[in-house]
Amino acid sequence: MNKNILVLLPVEARHREKLEAAGEGCRFVYSSPDQVSAEQIRAANIILGQPDAAQLQASPNLEWLQLASAGTDAYIEPGVLGPQTVLTNATGAYSKAVSEHAFALTLMLMKKLHLYRDEQNRKNWSDRGTVSSLADSTVAVVGLGDIGRAYARLVKAMGAYVIGVKRRAGNCPDCADELVMTQDLDSVLPRADVIMSILPNTAETRYIYTDERFDKMKAGALFINCGRGNAVASEVLLRAISEHKIAAAAIDVTETEPLPADSPLWGLENLVITPHISGNFHLPETFERIVDIAAGNLKAFLAGDELRSTVDFTTGYAK
Amino acid sequence: MNKNILVLLPVEARHREKLEAAGEGCRFVYSSPDQVSAEQIRAANIILGQPDAAQLQASPNLEWLQLASAGTDAYIEPGVLGPQTVLTNATGAYSKAVSEHAFALTLMLMKKLHLYRDEQNRKNWSDRGTVSSLADSTVAVVGLGDIGRAYARLVKAMGAYVIGVKRRAGNCPDCADELVMTQDLDSVLPRADVIMSILPNTAETRYIYTDERFDKMKAGALFINCGRGNAVASEVLLRAISEHKIAAAAIDVTETEPLPADSPLWGLENLVITPHISGNFHLPETFERIVDIAAGNLKAFLAGDELRSTVDFTTGYAK
Repeated sequence: MNKNILVLLPVEARHREKLEAAGEGCRFVYSSPDQVSAEQIRAANIILGQPDAAQLQASPNLEWLQLASAGTDAYIEPGVLGPQTVLTNATGAYSKAVSEHAFALTLMLMKKLHLYRDEQNRKNWSDRGTVSSLADSTVAVVGLGDIGRAYARLVKAMGAYVIGVKRRAGNCPDCADELVMTQDLDSVLPRADVIMSILPNTAETRYIYTDERFDKMKAGALFINCGRGNAVASEVLLRAISEHKIAAAAIDVTETEPLPADSPLWGLENLVITPHISGNFHLPETFERIVDIAAGNLKAFLAGDELRSTVDFTTGYAK
Repeated sequence: MNKNILVLLPVEARHREKLEAAGEGCRFVYSSPDQVSAEQIRAANIILGQPDAAQLQASPNLEWLQLASAGTDAYIEPGVLGPQTVLTNATGAYSKAVSEHAFALTLMLMKKLHLYRDEQNRKNWSDRGTVSSLADSTVAVVGLGDIGRAYARLVKAMGAYVIGVKRRAGNCPDCADELVMTQDLDSVLPRADVIMSILPNTAETRYIYTDERFDKMKAGALFINCGRGNAVASEVLLRAISEHKIAAAAIDVTETEPLPADSPLWGLENLVITPHISGNFHLPETFERIVDIAAGNLKAFLAGDELRSTVDFTTGYAK
């Protein structure tokens, strides 16, 4: 095999060694999403990393694209990849980083640490009242992929009762106490003290959290979104918080990213915003996992074996 | 038995029932620390709750004082309690509330959520870089009472390696991977990614965290104090953070409380301050536990049985 492999990952020497060992005999070109040229993309048979989707233009030489992300939405749009291109994502690489971030956000809201940080900035030694405990809480985990399951394990370890919500029926995994299908989400919302949403961007999940659904939540509920921002429209979230439909929310993703400076969401006391950083490579282990996935798939691809996490273009999920 | 029992706890009807069932035949007077009179205190054979220590004046009728707190420092000072008065504290009541607060603070620092809250308040969609994980961390828990052990269980459930630090030698409890005596604290500091201090206020623990000890910590270390504020002098903590001896700290207690408005600690970006609220009765279960401890001890006291958590006046700890 003598493929042109374009690597758009921020690799160090030891990562290159790992990839080149898996792709022996191939030609490796290293660049970054910002600096890669149209020619480099056109020449590539394999791309490892996250090219700008607009640059791909259904490149006829591209046989396989291994993403560094779990989300695939930009790449399954018509015209981005040609019919001959296999797409794989990095499902699993982010489970530790994103689940821990979502878990930290959950505890921050429960213990009102966002309010205490604000009081600190005002130099106020001021008591903000009662708090709650995961040990006494019912937590709905909406989206039970790798990240959702990892988060479920964390909250369950603290004593929460966990309702897993997923697309397809199946056996209840160990990380949950109960399994409900996404189509029955409405039955879960009035029962949950915490709703943690970790849905990908698909036709079914877009704007899934409507005004009516926030109306169904408990007044004391906490809503966490670390999936995709378009699961909830900004104005719906604004109403949910400012009209006290729920107690508080924390989001790592917004409907428009970056969140515009004039968005009223910024100023909501009971909304915590982090700028889509739960994943990235902020936990160094995440990047190591991605390189391992890419190297494993590269070996499989060259041997003609099945790839890990091939994306189904109709659903956007890994098969 | 026909004792005068003064209850200074914010009890509701069901709590009164519980206490009066345990103290059948006794005379109950209900008040609060703010409103209780000198005569009421002088008349009491038993006090359940937290009177102002200055009001006690070694009252000769007082046979037993059941505190609502775990800390005992104000009551073991000479002249506060007469030699006939038995003192018990509410050790155990706060373990859930305080351990979870300390755990939430730990995750907040690890995931930089305090910095993201500040960015949010500036309407900045701004990436603050790498984070860390408890799963890859060594955590020193300094003080292995109920709260320390509960905290150790939480961080261990997330995969941390736990070094328990306690006063007296003993077997390593299940919640820790390793046990070190407080006198060997200096050997632990260079190894820990997180130092969580939950020490009471005693002669041995006062100003235990010196400049030299912060010098011994890792540059990336996180320091959490949910014990007593005088474990570290304000200026020592100020130097530790502003001179980057450690990466960040979170404290629920300060050397002087409330923290004075002109303290330079308020404005430190990498210091998180909460106003001594980790305990109180902010988790409703805490108060239920305290009433249960008081009722159980009341029954034992009237029956002449041994009380739970009798305080040793020489150490300030429950025996």
